[in-house]
Amino acid sequence: MSDEPETSRSHGRLSIRASLKPRDLMEEPRHVRGAFEAKVITLFPEAFPGILGLSLTGKGLDFGLWRLETFDLRNFGEGRHRNVDDTPSGGGAGMVLRADVVDRALRATGATPEEDRSVRPLIYLSPRGRPLDQAMARRFAGGEGVTLLCGRFEGVDQRVLDHWQIEEVSLGDFVMTGGELAAQALLDATVRLLPGVLGNAESAVEESFSDGMLEHPQYTRPALWEGREIPPVLASGNHAAIAKWRRQQSEEITAARRPDLIAAKQRKEAGDAAP
Amino acid sequence: MSDEPETSRSHGRLSIRASLKPRDLMEEPRHVRGAFEAKVITLFPEAFPGILGLSLTGKGLDFGLWRLETFDLRNFGEGRHRNVDDTPSGGGAGMVLRADVVDRALRATGATPEEDRSVRPLIYLSPRGRPLDQAMARRFAGGEGVTLLCGRFEGVDQRVLDHWQIEEVSLGDFVMTGGELAAQALLDATVRLLPGVLGNAESAVEESFSDGMLEHPQYTRPALWEGREIPPVLASGNHAAIAKWRRQQSEEITAARRPDLIAAKQRKEAGDAAP
Repeated sequence: MSDEPETSRSHGRLSIRASLKPRDLMEEPRHVRGAFEAKVITLFPEAFPGILGLSLTGKGLDFGLWRLETFDLRNFGEGRHRNVDDTPSGGGAGMVLRADVVDRALRATGATPEEDRSVRPLIYLSPRGRPLDQAMARRFAGGEGVTLLCGRFEGVDQRVLDHWQIEEVSLGDFVMTGGELAAQALLDATVRLLPGVLGNAESAVEESFSDGMLEHPQYTRPALWEGREIPPVLASGNHAAIAKWRRQQSEEITAARRPDLIAAKQRKEAGDAAP
Repeated sequence: MSDEPETSRSHGRLSIRASLKPRDLMEEPRHVRGAFEAKVITLFPEAFPGILGLSLTGKGLDFGLWRLETFDLRNFGEGRHRNVDDTPSGGGAGMVLRADVVDRALRATGATPEEDRSVRPLIYLSPRGRPLDQAMARRFAGGEGVTLLCGRFEGVDQRVLDHWQIEEVSLGDFVMTGGELAAQALLDATVRLLPGVLGNAESAVEESFSDGMLEHPQYTRPALWEGREIPPVLASGNHAAIAKWRRQQSEEITAARRPDLIAAKQRKEAGDAAP
């Protein structure tokens, strides 16, 4: 490793895909003023942009609708070997990321312990965090960007989480080898809500989830497949009947699979109705 | 696109990283008999192995502890343009993956509608599914492999889900642009539980989550950082006191952040205690 390592790597402003747009648009500046900025601290910067560089999130990156910068935690390590971790105080398995090393990486992103986190949340991806949900993604997408810390090993020294008042977000009640996939999932869910990233036709998907219910079943051609027909109401042309059928299906599926969502919706509606 | 497309791509058996093991071990056959097989149907096969090719999951892939095969859904599309989707029956935004196209891709993986799904689950990643949890990852890791269908657009024709009795699994209550990141998260959580993928020191992480509680805080050197000390009990050398402190911390954090986990644990213990 060089003594003067590159400390961060940017994606999205310089890369160009020739087939996406006519030439005159391609020559526009790639940097959209005020574009959403994602900064990711990770021991695996080569994992980014990964899937986020493909499909609609990738087009958004190419068009400068959002920006992605990775910070290689290794570059902020201690000593000649740039150690980033040490054994847990009090004993136990695994290794813990050092507070001072993480602190240096956080400062390199331009963050400060005192800044306003409502416009630029600072997030540690961890199974101890609040589970990611659509409301959270909407909150992140409404800000200027997010700074994400990806964990590895046994965790991060609690003092740096306390000192920086870092928000912990979990992808769910399961353990992964690191926070990188969780960071990408959070960014995917967030970036697709930014203006211009989804086509108009697709933005409705969000709406159908945001009412707190699971989606009704979908069907498409062919009309008959393996002896199975499309429900006749969908071919009726009766829009009110179709909407009613879909609503019923959505309610039945949600009640069967996720009664917790029904309960949460009822609590929310009771709260909204209260004076 | 060629008229005779490559229908699948394998990872893990042929790739070699020179630095990981001494030469004699490197020359062993890469195919471990009975290794866990992940098969992924996707419109973005280039997104795989992605992060799964790095770190411990990547070493496991290189050592043949698990295998990954992708199936490009586009290759099973209709007609000259290999269309995979069509408009939703009954109207609405987005596009729906066709039952016949998905069916052909499923058959190409070697799956059949009648096979025993307990040894090789067949999973569609979808926000309508059961949320992924550690128990599910453990179940998947105990089988011979998994076959994963990654969605895009508005969804998949319900008839192919019914016909194949496909299990739906969700990463959480948020919407992503596609199922690929969810598939990778599921595979990461599953593969790290396979024998040999984690070092002994790290496998304890799983145990600490599997008791249904969030982890206690972790600390490491330096002893004093930014005026913040490591809790003195952790330097006491008193293993019983350390274990008790960690347990208390774990309970307090779980109660504060995830009362639902406490309730679930109590229900489970009440159930276990019943005659």
